[in-house]
Amino acid sequence: MAELHPVCAPLAFLLGTWQGTGTGVYPTIEDFSYAEEVSFTHAGKPFVAYTQRTKDAGSGLPLHAEAGYLRPQEGGRVELVLVQPSGIAELLEGTVEDQNIQLASNAVLGTGSAKPVTATERRFWVEGEVLYSSVAMAAVGLELQPHVVSEMYRLS
Amino acid sequence: MAELHPVCAPLAFLLGTWQGTGTGVYPTIEDFSYAEEVSFTHAGKPFVAYTQRTKDAGSGLPLHAEAGYLRPQEGGRVELVLVQPSGIAELLEGTVEDQNIQLASNAVLGTGSAKPVTATERRFWVEGEVLYSSVAMAAVGLELQPHVVSEMYRLS
Repeated sequence: MAELHPVCAPLAFLLGTWQGTGTGVYPTIEDFSYAEEVSFTHAGKPFVAYTQRTKDAGSGLPLHAEAGYLRPQEGGRVELVLVQPSGIAELLEGTVEDQNIQLASNAVLGTGSAKPVTATERRFWVEGEVLYSSVAMAAVGLELQPHVVSEMYRLS
Repeated sequence: MAELHPVCAPLAFLLGTWQGTGTGVYPTIEDFSYAEEVSFTHAGKPFVAYTQRTKDAGSGLPLHAEAGYLRPQEGGRVELVLVQPSGIAELLEGTVEDQNIQLASNAVLGTGSAKPVTATERRFWVEGEVLYSSVAMAAVGLELQPHVVSEMYRLS
């Protein structure tokens, strides 16, 4: 195992695999609930790799996935580059402080076949043993608003 | 194991894990060689997840990584959304035909701390038992030109 790159120290609280459940809302769809697994790994370099997968809470069928890289910067700043199989790529910037990461999109891009998403805000924060994750989204012409929130516990 | 989504049939030749070696060139850096592992997986949904990691051929230290999703479209078209830990996100579109995927970037975006990359062309193609992968790149103000090419064999 490589040693954690010093610039990644503020993200050390995330490292590992977490599992839990979440709920989703948006004006254009029915409310939904899901099982989620996220993983944060490092290779000794100045970034942390992030992957996420969700399954329908009832059927167990795969719902969403995403993959990206967290890039810590000076002064408690952090960047996230992220892609989703729906054809969306996001560039986000924000802060990490006291086990709390807050990010807002600088740019959201979609392929020709992707639904129009114009902005997102994302948070990851740990309280006690729980990792919380939330996404707010401006999509299909609507304003930025809450979309999903989840609670996960560390698997490894 | 989920059944392959029918729209992913043209990408079935990629599914699995492949390992091999590659070489890289660019006017602004010294030539380099590397060991590479790529993985193409599916979850029964209409996309294929792609991950890649490379290591320095001499030292074994991690070099590059990327992650993304291939999205087959009608008429032999395919989209790729891709992120790299260097802070780059790419949206590419192109074609898949006879085990040959050719993609060109529609958009390349970088975070505030990323090096300027303005365009890429990517190919994945299989001949016999070999998966070839190549990337051409326009970066740091230079024209689109060959950057890396690799040959890999199927592990699983």
